[in-house]
Amino acid sequence: MKYYPMPTPNSTAQTVILANGDFPTHPLPKAILQNNQERLICCDGAANDLLEHKITPQRIIGDCDSLSLKNQQQYQEIITKIPDQNTNDLTKAVLFCQSNAIQSLIILGATGKREDHTIANIALLAHYLPLIENITMITDFGVFNAIQHPSEFESYPRQQVSLFSLFPTPITTTNLKYPLNQQSHSYWWQGTLNESLANSFTIKVNDMLIIYRALKKD
Amino acid sequence: MKYYPMPTPNSTAQTVILANGDFPTHPLPKAILQNNQERLICCDGAANDLLEHKITPQRIIGDCDSLSLKNQQQYQEIITKIPDQNTNDLTKAVLFCQSNAIQSLIILGATGKREDHTIANIALLAHYLPLIENITMITDFGVFNAIQHPSEFESYPRQQVSLFSLFPTPITTTNLKYPLNQQSHSYWWQGTLNESLANSFTIKVNDMLIIYRALKKD
Repeated sequence: MKYYPMPTPNSTAQTVILANGDFPTHPLPKAILQNNQERLICCDGAANDLLEHKITPQRIIGDCDSLSLKNQQQYQEIITKIPDQNTNDLTKAVLFCQSNAIQSLIILGATGKREDHTIANIALLAHYLPLIENITMITDFGVFNAIQHPSEFESYPRQQVSLFSLFPTPITTTNLKYPLNQQSHSYWWQGTLNESLANSFTIKVNDMLIIYRALKKD
Repeated sequence: MKYYPMPTPNSTAQTVILANGDFPTHPLPKAILQNNQERLICCDGAANDLLEHKITPQRIIGDCDSLSLKNQQQYQEIITKIPDQNTNDLTKAVLFCQSNAIQSLIILGATGKREDHTIANIALLAHYLPLIENITMITDFGVFNAIQHPSEFESYPRQQVSLFSLFPTPITTTNLKYPLNQQSHSYWWQGTLNESLANSFTIKVNDMLIIYRALKKD
């Protein structure tokens, strides 16, 4: 059964993507951003923010319409322009990683600002399942993973947990306060407000499910 | 065909609910909050913030575990305690409105902070469809409505629009940049990144759909 540890400030991945949402403010994603500068890909909307924080990414990806002219000139050697209107900047960055055979990825800055982008970016984790083996999204409020097989998650007692089904699929859990036994969720709100009872919990599914584990407040 | 105007600072409703997310900062929801104090219901987690802004709601609803002791004592006459663990505070407030025969509702402060709550609160708009005739959710970034019949939306050219299907259902649109003709969305990201072409657009559906219209930045 695949095990998903909780990220730590020392967590690393082959590549870290910084997306266009809120720039990280929680100490955990901030530390991961700082500690992974040499393997950092930045969606173009986030590059101005990142450069203001004196962090230079390895690559900037997007249609570059939101990158200042000054930054476009200064960083032209690390910019990969992808003008496709049918995918968002996060997906462009993930596809770029896939084409470079990246198999582990941390995504930061993917939520906040427009809620339609937040929902799309979280739901897209399911779309990325067949593309890259290990993807963890870390926000200022929690950790998201998409799964499609039975999985075990590191946790702590009373950690807030939410499950989001993309399609109704039978779910069986252990170590959650509101356990599920071959039950399905038809709606996105039905799997929210759960809670871990122990130092790990398990989820059995055979279709796509997105798992949220809350971060402790900073 | 039901028409959904864009809210204005003077928009009003029989009741306005302030939920537990980010306290409004965009001028539009801020003005609506200010202008509707005499018909304001507050979810308990938001009451401390609201009282700091010198606004006293008509009623405070929730399990009250997040309301300071001082506020619990001072405002005990307007507090309705509902300890049900199976519904969130926003739903408790909406059910309270339904039991009081409220037929028009504006929801503020329902997004921001934990993303699982943001997703649940937005998706719950579909759950509220049979309960209350007119509900509009206004955030710092946009306006959300749930529909289940053909509808027309006030808009402006180039306004960003996203459509979220709870279940795959045929959608037909007019006046959108990426038009749909009896097409379905299987995933929550598929209806994002659309754009209005005119001062209104129409959406034909026969099942639940959630519509997002972006606000102009303040």
